[in-house]
Amino acid sequence: MGPGPIDAYPSVLRALSAPLTGQYDPFMTATMTETQVLYRQVWGTENEATVIVDGTSRAGIEAAMVSLIRPGDRVLVPVFGRFGHLLAEIAERAMAEVHTIHAEWGQVFPVSVVEEAIARVRPTLVAMVQGDTSTTMLQPLDEIGEVCRRYGALFYSDATASLAGNPFEADAWGLDAATAGLQKCLGGPSGAAPLTLSPRAVEVVTARKRVEAGIREEGDPQAPDFVRSNYFDLGMILDYWGPRRLNHHTEAASMLYAARECARLVLVEGREAVIARHVRAGEAMLAGVRALGLTTFGDLSHKMTNIVAVYIPEGVPGDAARAAMLEDFGIEIGTSFGPLHGKVWRIGTMGYNAREDAVMVTLAALEAVLRRFGHTAFTAGGGVDAAADIYRGA
Amino acid sequence: MGPGPIDAYPSVLRALSAPLTGQYDPFMTATMTETQVLYRQVWGTENEATVIVDGTSRAGIEAAMVSLIRPGDRVLVPVFGRFGHLLAEIAERAMAEVHTIHAEWGQVFPVSVVEEAIARVRPTLVAMVQGDTSTTMLQPLDEIGEVCRRYGALFYSDATASLAGNPFEADAWGLDAATAGLQKCLGGPSGAAPLTLSPRAVEVVTARKRVEAGIREEGDPQAPDFVRSNYFDLGMILDYWGPRRLNHHTEAASMLYAARECARLVLVEGREAVIARHVRAGEAMLAGVRALGLTTFGDLSHKMTNIVAVYIPEGVPGDAARAAMLEDFGIEIGTSFGPLHGKVWRIGTMGYNAREDAVMVTLAALEAVLRRFGHTAFTAGGGVDAAADIYRGA
Repeated sequence: MGPGPIDAYPSVLRALSAPLTGQYDPFMTATMTETQVLYRQVWGTENEATVIVDGTSRAGIEAAMVSLIRPGDRVLVPVFGRFGHLLAEIAERAMAEVHTIHAEWGQVFPVSVVEEAIARVRPTLVAMVQGDTSTTMLQPLDEIGEVCRRYGALFYSDATASLAGNPFEADAWGLDAATAGLQKCLGGPSGAAPLTLSPRAVEVVTARKRVEAGIREEGDPQAPDFVRSNYFDLGMILDYWGPRRLNHHTEAASMLYAARECARLVLVEGREAVIARHVRAGEAMLAGVRALGLTTFGDLSHKMTNIVAVYIPEGVPGDAARAAMLEDFGIEIGTSFGPLHGKVWRIGTMGYNAREDAVMVTLAALEAVLRRFGHTAFTAGGGVDAAADIYRGA
Repeated sequence: MGPGPIDAYPSVLRALSAPLTGQYDPFMTATMTETQVLYRQVWGTENEATVIVDGTSRAGIEAAMVSLIRPGDRVLVPVFGRFGHLLAEIAERAMAEVHTIHAEWGQVFPVSVVEEAIARVRPTLVAMVQGDTSTTMLQPLDEIGEVCRRYGALFYSDATASLAGNPFEADAWGLDAATAGLQKCLGGPSGAAPLTLSPRAVEVVTARKRVEAGIREEGDPQAPDFVRSNYFDLGMILDYWGPRRLNHHTEAASMLYAARECARLVLVEGREAVIARHVRAGEAMLAGVRALGLTTFGDLSHKMTNIVAVYIPEGVPGDAARAAMLEDFGIEIGTSFGPLHGKVWRIGTMGYNAREDAVMVTLAALEAVLRRFGHTAFTAGGGVDAAADIYRGA
């Protein structure tokens, strides 16, 4: 019940153990194509260029950024938590001229502030996370794509922490690139990174295309400003997923099966229904921790559905309490990074764990642990009662 | 039964579906540590810096190369097949000054030729694959490490195609870096890349260390010539696997379980015994294809144990025959790349597939398919008989 990774859906665990096949076996290529179809729906996009990057969520981030950023490009990164710093860091390693703006931790950016920075910096790429687990905040993205387009910037967002538990509309919001991981609301293991690119973004990566030595054929393009990574060159990755099926990496079949099952579960339950389930679990957890006398962190009106941060009560040893949760109850909760390290606990309700029983058990355990460490400023059973009220619609 | 990926060991498939835990759960960190211990034995090394990179085998290659190569460094790549080209390609993307020497496909390099090139180029890094599935050749590495050391070069080899099915002795052979994947003789899925670094190599990556923004603390080193990738920065990856457990990517738990089980199986059966099993299966397959009147490709005295290439007989449509193998018998065999594309078939006997029954069934199917397409220059049943003779020690 931490900020992720989380327990996977049982059927995702089963999908992982399906037999392997060769990467050009018709079953395998059909599975890849089917996975693309499913993720287009998850992302809310018609982008042909919708694929899985074989690596953890930050592999998807790096693939998007190194493929879209030419050395010296101006990149704007609005930072409102740890993962904004990560985007800036990766842009810097990609040799961009990186400009950052900062929101106080626990807040998000008004669109006007982002627009002002875009007008000033004139970036080729605006990169920001949608949900930053370090602060629990969810940045509204729906108006930023239009601003980016007006100023000729590409718009990229990482939705690892938020996708499937909060609305995301790649096409309607004007995203040119979006990335995620499986290990949060999608309810799968870390190790596969869904990624989608708009036709505008595809143009950029295609213009930088270079077919690798060893499989190059006459007439294949060899752009001079090729991507400075082979593994993350989206031009090659698109050729691998596309009709040419040009050999690149050996597809990680087990992780592909998991990624496909994660998307299938979202679409069978329904994209809206899954979000509603996350909303309900998040509201129940929020009501529960408040009823246990805990103070929440950050602007609740912009909180992700799937995680809440609470200040560690005065006098309670944060790490010892987390250890008691884990060792005595088998429940993991997290602390955070940077300015919040050791000051807050973060409790997630995501993917398979966005369930009433998971919320109730966590609150019961938390009450016991708080009491043990001397925090008793609450009504006995108040946490679970408040959560149950949410589930009963009281 | 192609050049890989191959069928995984059943227990590896089961390991993939084990429940997930948080990445700092004591179970998870213990699993990481245990995996390191196991892979030290698989690699034949005492290198502390023995880890898994979260991505396919080429992710391991790129991590090793971008972390060891500073822009402008001279890198020597002896190329004897497609994957030599890949190493040169990745070195070029890492902005090295790349020098290649070439062996004819189907041959390997005498150590004197490599030494001559090292003396001429004076590289900081010599990079070569041990086994190149595109040609089936196994490059002897045992004397090259000493030469590299004499000339002050680091010595790196990718053993994706060969590890566990052919001898590999990281320490005894003087390797400074070695990488692999699970999807060949280790009998697992693609998606995790075992990697080991010598203390000399660790010095290089440590000198380039930069702790990422967002989790940086006062006093953390910030080298100016930092690695131009975040995901593949081995300095950070070593901090993540080391005692500091500094947050980097979210460990791909399912793939870690698979990697651990692959290594465990090798060590339970015994490193020598696993190689002997590959030798036996390879000899049986070789005897079988010869008895079916097929001509082998390349220098057999330097063939990997786990794969054989045969010329497609005159008049036999190679792709149609492969399709018949797959569609009618459920058995995949491969063709190759570049100059060998459409000219040879490659038949693997690796990992779980290095079994007598797998060899026998493949040869029986191949005989039927060859006959169907008009190649009949063999004694009926000759392929399976020849293979059975090897297994019976006749």
